Order: sequence, then structure tokens, then C-alpha cells
Amino acid sequence: MRYELYYWPGIQGRGEFVRLALEEAGADYVDVARGSGKLGGMAAMTRLLDSAAEERPPFAPPFLRAGRLLIAQTANILLFLGARHGLAPSDEAGRLWTHQLQLTIADMVVEAHDTHHPIASGLYYEDQKREALRRAEDFRQTRLPKFLGYFEAVLERNPRGPGHLVGARLSYADLSLFQLVDGLGYAFPKAMKRRARRYPEVMALHARVAKRKRIAQYLASPRRIPFNEDGIFRQYRELDA
Amino acid sequence: MRYELYYWPGIQGRGEFVRLALEEAGADYVDVARGSGKLGGMAAMTRLLDSAAEERPPFAPPFLRAGRLLIAQTANILLFLGARHGLAPSDEAGRLWTHQLQLTIADMVVEAHDTHHPIASGLYYEDQKREALRRAEDFRQTRLPKFLGYFEAVLERNPRGPGHLVGARLSYADLSLFQLVDGLGYAFPKAMKRRARRYPEVMALHARVAKRKRIAQYLASPRRIPFNEDGIFRQYRELDA
Repeated sequence: MRYELYYWPGIQGRGEFVRLALEEAGADYVDVARGSGKLGGMAAMTRLLDSAAEERPPFAPPFLRAGRLLIAQTANILLFLGARHGLAPSDEAGRLWTHQLQLTIADMVVEAHDTHHPIASGLYYEDQKREALRRAEDFRQTRLPKFLGYFEAVLERNPRGPGHLVGARLSYADLSLFQLVDGLGYAFPKAMKRRARRYPEVMALHARVAKRKRIAQYLASPRRIPFNEDGIFRQYRELDA
Repeated sequence: MRYELYYWPGIQGRGEFVRLALEEAGADYVDVARGSGKLGGMAAMTRLLDSAAEERPPFAPPFLRAGRLLIAQTANILLFLGARHGLAPSDEAGRLWTHQLQLTIADMVVEAHDTHHPIASGLYYEDQKREALRRAEDFRQTRLPKFLGYFEAVLERNPRGPGHLVGARLSYADLSLFQLVDGLGYAFPKAMKRRARRYPEVMALHARVAKRKRIAQYLASPRRIPFNEDGIFRQYRELDA
């Protein structure tokens, strides 16, 4: 079965967390809105989002078509893929713990996004730049250390060693933490460079995931959209320090 | 088994979504941080949050102790309770759909919170009031209609009728939508009064959940903390219109 991933075609965004899981799993998938022609492109995604016939409509991208299932919400898609592709433990405790970590990563993603859009996602950055300067400063000084310190502690305390967030094997939470750190490094290069040595296990995990065979191939491929200033992680120099 | 819920003792906050599920389930639970003495109170919660011995630490309250499990992240706790207490369908599609709705409710909760704290959760409202006025206006005019219109569509399209978000039975998503609408009615009475007639099924669900036997008993009990200006939903007149 071929999965259909629906997400904005020009950015990594939240879709990237799903892409990384699909790539690591070696799953057969099509990135629908990046396709062209009748069967793909933005029109296909818009059609589905606007369809009044969809009994279980998504609120927003990303969403994944898996046979008869249409699944939205990034963490929910990963919950599904984790179970299908061995990217999470199969026992209840491990499954919940992995999901808990993913939801905490998702919380930080919202906060990273809101550094450049603290007032309204529908307004331009330029129209909320003054507020963004304030929010980004708090993010760098308070939130970033709190979240990364937490993930560092999780890795340190893992009884199976600091190689993974959960147990002794890779999970989708590891892939997502890689993406989070990658995005933070793009958006806040100065802040991250200065702080990296406080989070050695987090940074080591980031480096290790990037070198995994399938992930390395993906990152080097045209399927990996470069970071840019339309996504969640944006490099606005004035927001970094 | 008695559940132990850990959450800030003075507010409904995110803990309320868990409390409603526990109450509807008739589950045996103790609201630890609201207790007193050696076995309860804030000290018990702080001790657990600060403990370096916890292998799978929560990032923040709420969290739930269920035997040997310690589960954090509101939506994750509800995923667990939903399966245990019949507050979600047991089939994969229904379970994921219920969780997807919960995560969308959680997204709106973040945005409702950020109307009064758009810059930093660690700063006082008074120190970000100007920004709050801008964010609240966008929330009322853009985000509130988008989210509530979405939930209205979900209810309308439910093939089992608009009585519930998922299928023909109550789920934790219904309880959470009740809480969301209740909070919005407290924080934005004018905006909600003016718009209520656009979301008849959402408002009907809110009224119906409030009348469920166990929920009505809970809401009338001292266990239900009144809304106040320390929680997620705050009644600041200048943010309503």
C-alpha cells in the first residue's frame, strides 16, 4: 500500500516529522501536494480540505491517507506509523511514553513558530516584528533551555543508555528531536552554538540520526526541502542572539 | 486502583480535561496537589517534578499515576483513559479519529491561552497587555470561527448524528469540547454570545454534556474549581468584544 502524505509543498513544516518517519521506515509514499497533474499538486490537497463529503475531515495539513484511513495531526500520524513500522515500542507503557515525548516536542515547535508569529499566523512577520523581538528573546532565554534541558535529562536517565529517547531502539521521537534540533540550529544559530555544550546527549543524538543510512540519503535528496523563511523555523537574524 | 492526578491546585487549566474524563468514568482518583499533609499538596507534585530519580519524567503538569505508569501530556492521558474506560471507540480508526479531535482541541486551547500571554508565559499579563489586545482580536475574528466552524462541521457530518463528535457514543473528545466551549464562554462572553447561533450543534453538545448525571454532579461539587484569572481561560473585558 502506498501512503499519501498531504502537506504544503514549499516547506518542511510539520509535514517533515511525518516525512522523516516514512523515510526511516522505507515506506512507499507520495508527497501529494508536491506532485503535479490530475492526481497531485496543491489542488488535490485543497480539494480534500474543502470537501464537504469527508466524514472525518482534517483541520489542517499534514494528513496521511493510509488505505481507508485519513489521519491528521502530526503526533497522531506518528502514533499510527510508529505502531505500523516498529518506530515505537509495542507495549503500552513504551507507546505512551514515546507519544508523550512527541507531544512535548510538538509544544516546543509551536513556541518556535510563534517567535516570528506571536500575534497572528495570518499576518506577515513584518506586521508583528516588534512583538516577535520580545517573544524570541524569551524563547531563547527561558523556553529553549527548559525544553532542551528536559530532553537532555530524558536521554541521561534512559536506563538503556543515552543513545535513544526511548529504550534501546530508534523511535519516531528520536527522529522528531533530530528535526527540532535541526530547525533550531537553522533559526537560532548563535543561540544554539552558544548553548550546544550544555546538551551533549541531545546534540549527539541529532548527529547520529543525521548519519542513519536512510535519513542521510533522504537529507541529501531533492525530497528534503531546504529550510526557508516560509516555514516554522526561519532565519531572521534579529530574532537570534 | 486509585489514580493519582497531579495538577496545579488553584486552576482548571489543562488538568480539567483529565478531571472530566475521570469524573464521567466514575473512576477512583485523588487530585494530589489539592490534598494536604504528607501524602498530598503542592509539595508532592513539586517533589515528583524535581526528582532526578524519575526515569520517564513529565515536562509539566498534568500527569497521572496509574499503578506503575506515570503519564503526562493531556491528550496522551486521555488516550490512555479513553481505552481503559470506554471513552473512545476500541477500533483503530475510531481511536485515532478521537485522538485527532482531542489534539485539535488542544491546539485551540494553546491559542486561547496565548490571547492573554502572547509574549511569555513567565511574564505578567500586565506586561504584555498591548500585545494581548492584538492577539485577542485576531483570535476572536479569525481563529475562533475557524475552530468552532470545524467542530460544527464534524458534528454535522457524523453519520451517526450530531449528538457526538465520534460515532453514537460519548467520547473524551465530547467532554473536552464541552470544556473548551465552557472556557470560551467565560473568557469571551460577548464574542461567544454573538456567534453562538452559528454553531448550534457545538452549543447543543455543550449543554448536553453539562446535564450528564456524573458531569452535572461534578460541576455542582467543590471539586470543580471556578474559572479564575490564573487559568487558561481568563475574563479580561478588554480582550473581549
